[in-house]
Amino acid sequence: MEKKELLYEGKSKKLYKSDDEALLIAQFKDDLTASNAGETKSKGVLNNEFSTKLFNILENSNIKTHFIKTLDDKTQLVKKVKVIPLEVIIRNVATGSLVKNFGIKECEELPFPLIELYYKNDDFGDPLVNSEHCLLLGIVKTIDDLNELRQLGREINNILSKFFFTCNIKLIDFKIEFGVDSEGNILLCDSISFDNCRLWDINTNEKNIVSNEEVLKRISNLSN
Amino acid sequence: MEKKELLYEGKSKKLYKSDDEALLIAQFKDDLTASNAGETKSKGVLNNEFSTKLFNILENSNIKTHFIKTLDDKTQLVKKVKVIPLEVIIRNVATGSLVKNFGIKECEELPFPLIELYYKNDDFGDPLVNSEHCLLLGIVKTIDDLNELRQLGREINNILSKFFFTCNIKLIDFKIEFGVDSEGNILLCDSISFDNCRLWDINTNEKNIVSNEEVLKRISNLSN
Repeated sequence: MEKKELLYEGKSKKLYKSDDEALLIAQFKDDLTASNAGETKSKGVLNNEFSTKLFNILENSNIKTHFIKTLDDKTQLVKKVKVIPLEVIIRNVATGSLVKNFGIKECEELPFPLIELYYKNDDFGDPLVNSEHCLLLGIVKTIDDLNELRQLGREINNILSKFFFTCNIKLIDFKIEFGVDSEGNILLCDSISFDNCRLWDINTNEKNIVSNEEVLKRISNLSN
Repeated sequence: MEKKELLYEGKSKKLYKSDDEALLIAQFKDDLTASNAGETKSKGVLNNEFSTKLFNILENSNIKTHFIKTLDDKTQLVKKVKVIPLEVIIRNVATGSLVKNFGIKECEELPFPLIELYYKNDDFGDPLVNSEHCLLLGIVKTIDDLNELRQLGREINNILSKFFFTCNIKLIDFKIEFGVDSEGNILLCDSISFDNCRLWDINTNEKNIVSNEEVLKRISNLSN
């Protein structure tokens, strides 16, 4: 399968057309914000390994995703979808904007997984939206559509939190995106990569970030 | 009824204790942001007249409010409530932050009255919140509580939009706040004043702000 025309370039990956109309090739980029000092593998390789692992875990738990297979050390073959312009953020522990914007105590375990929706629109800086904004902006047609995305988000959080826990890692928060395929199925698209999730060591109640290579080591040991 | 100790000072009014534990005295301030040039009455007087009128209309339509009666040209006697720290914004037409933050077209009639909730907290700049934030921040106990506030907001919007329409005024958007009295009733508190609602002339699809004194003239002529 060969990369064709570049369709989209995001912060952490590029999307190319492929030989097949219904499939795209996702290539992870090396020039990323969240890379750690002293790592021996490039960021694109790390993100591809990580993301492939998580897609496999989710597919095995009956979550529909756009992932088909890994092509090489930085690329994946994925299904083409119409992306729903929402960043779905799921938070289990307070940090980052939750502390800064609302005064919730750093490192506080939330009483339930918090779901936040942000309108994916660079011109407006990806603003936080409520359900009615989503209808108004035509992001979804009904509140039920939104609730389906939220429910999928909770299931994905549940599966991944349990998986990371077995690797002594706490899933603090992460971002996902969804798309709709040609048959109208809602698929997890984009990728959960090191750039859009926070992972801390489980054996502490403080902020104790686990390095990307250490995360990969732990998740590979356990479930390969 | 005499003003006692100052309890709270906001942008447009001060709240004082009264002789009665269960009652407060609200005094509208003159030093306001939204005053118009060339007006003969002071801003406090205008806001008191306007707010009194709207409270009367809402009470006559069976909306429970904290309003008891007007005491003099700038003050009202109101029930003491525990304020719910939410600014409830209801929008019928796109302008202001809706245009700036989401790119909705200026002056566009919305397909339904949009309700936005902002966390009333000066330290954090009154951020927009979703339903789950409200639970997390302890603003309300259940989603049903929030839905009750939203439903009250819609009813108030409906009553006031119709009233203003008969005065050739379009209610573009406005802010309300709610409080809980000693018996657990939810009351509209704060005041709908010239500082927290936008009123345009009905006979145009463009932004055509009606002056505060003209608004008062129109609403007094019609329903006194």
